[in-house]
Amino acid sequence: MNEFDLVLPSEVDVREVGMRDGLQLEAPVPLAAKLEMLEALVATGVRRIEATSFVSPKAVPALADADQVAAELARWPGVHWSALVANERGAVRAVDAGVADLEYVVSAADGHSRANAGRSTAEAVAAVGEIARLAHAAGGSLEVIIATAWDCPFDGRTPIARTVDVARAAVTAGADQLCLGDTIGTTTPLRVVQMLDAVRRACPGIPLGVHFHDTRGTGQANALAAVQAGVTQLDASIGGLGGCPFAPGASGNIATEELVYMLEESGVRTGLDLDALLVAARATERAVGHELPSSLYRAGGRSVPRALDAR
Amino acid sequence: MNEFDLVLPSEVDVREVGMRDGLQLEAPVPLAAKLEMLEALVATGVRRIEATSFVSPKAVPALADADQVAAELARWPGVHWSALVANERGAVRAVDAGVADLEYVVSAADGHSRANAGRSTAEAVAAVGEIARLAHAAGGSLEVIIATAWDCPFDGRTPIARTVDVARAAVTAGADQLCLGDTIGTTTPLRVVQMLDAVRRACPGIPLGVHFHDTRGTGQANALAAVQAGVTQLDASIGGLGGCPFAPGASGNIATEELVYMLEESGVRTGLDLDALLVAARATERAVGHELPSSLYRAGGRSVPRALDAR
Repeated sequence: MNEFDLVLPSEVDVREVGMRDGLQLEAPVPLAAKLEMLEALVATGVRRIEATSFVSPKAVPALADADQVAAELARWPGVHWSALVANERGAVRAVDAGVADLEYVVSAADGHSRANAGRSTAEAVAAVGEIARLAHAAGGSLEVIIATAWDCPFDGRTPIARTVDVARAAVTAGADQLCLGDTIGTTTPLRVVQMLDAVRRACPGIPLGVHFHDTRGTGQANALAAVQAGVTQLDASIGGLGGCPFAPGASGNIATEELVYMLEESGVRTGLDLDALLVAARATERAVGHELPSSLYRAGGRSVPRALDAR
Repeated sequence: MNEFDLVLPSEVDVREVGMRDGLQLEAPVPLAAKLEMLEALVATGVRRIEATSFVSPKAVPALADADQVAAELARWPGVHWSALVANERGAVRAVDAGVADLEYVVSAADGHSRANAGRSTAEAVAAVGEIARLAHAAGGSLEVIIATAWDCPFDGRTPIARTVDVARAAVTAGADQLCLGDTIGTTTPLRVVQMLDAVRRACPGIPLGVHFHDTRGTGQANALAAVQAGVTQLDASIGGLGGCPFAPGASGNIATEELVYMLEESGVRTGLDLDALLVAARATERAVGHELPSSLYRAGGRSVPRALDAR
């Protein structure tokens, strides 16, 4: 066993996605409870929050109040807000509501693209240019999130070349930033770094984030591998909210408090406060009315030995 | 972002600890159900199983049948069995029962040592020599598991020098092998590799394993860091069995199936079969009569896309 140095960046930039990816499959939460969640999330120190998505209220009733949520965001001027859109119509709505930093999902796998968005990957890519134009005209930016970047529940493994092609096409069409999504929580550390390497080679200079799910217990390990590979933009959801409706009991997104704990205790600054995250998880649990999957939250902040807290 | 290679060993050696660390805090499971668990575990291909512990039946009623379990192990000659002992008396019992490969726990932190074993760390270390002698006289070996190697629920952080001192003293007294235990599931990747490095420098040539808990969602990331650092001996518990009784709902040991999934899908051979692990988890769930914490098990083996299984 040779000596080994774990090389990590000095800081990372966490994006909180609980308000969108976390809530989208929940029973609709009243606006007042969402604002309590937001208040608690802002208090954690997080600098980037995915506020909502501008999609069909029929498809996602939990986020039917996107305009009302957007109207409240000016309360918290220090935060960088973004919103997800599913098409050009959504982009117009978002910009009109005052959110110009957009996220747009393209599924790298056709099977998931058709099931999720009703069109092929190529058709989804074709919309990037117009959505980017709308964002840029409003003074904002466009991040393309490549869903099923590693695996698809219908098509199986996504070839690296396929995800790379989507990344390259998105950037060519005007995307300012990319994010790779492990939509069904199946990827593993080696595949994470292989994919990151391939996408970076294809899209040099384009900021690249990661979006992991913890469905099979590998989410934090994948995040660690990504951070070792130099990624500094990571999505996470308060309390691990965001489970797949087709896998009851399975964990959803990686939990923000677990990511922050792992990184901060490994010397990587996140700017987020662990105690405030546990308060925000409590507000989230109240809002959704059921237990959250996060192990750290369930273990309880206070069971972290005092001497650790006092560090 | 520079290119980054995730360097991993080609294979690792997983020890299944569900029969001991997993069951020890459960309501006692009938011998017949334990044998069904064992049968299912052996079928996974695992080569090392911690079968039971020879401790006071009053302190650990769930393992009061250690002698009966030990009497059955000859059914499965291909497996390397070990048992945990708490003192010289337990070592005599284990050897008499036919298990000569012993594990003995020393808590690096005095607070945990007194609470768990009723004696100081120094007093616990003082017993290593006689237990090693008993194991060696029976043709076996002694592994010292250093509990609270990183953190103690009473004393807070364990200084690296303290864990190193225990490691060195154990080896000097006759331990053949060491294992570092993150007893309360608080450590994180950077601290893992720092501790491993320090212990290896102090005890060159001594096999060194790791025993992680997933109480705060960092267990698999810690395992990844340890494997990157060259560790090839890892403890894991089927279904993640082994939660702390003082943190209801919190995950316990890292789940064997999650560890195997993460490593095998990252190109590291474990010799364990994922489908067989899910069958063993089902047997374990039946035996203990409650849901297991493992996310992978809850997500369901069949929800792993077919194309992944067919790989």
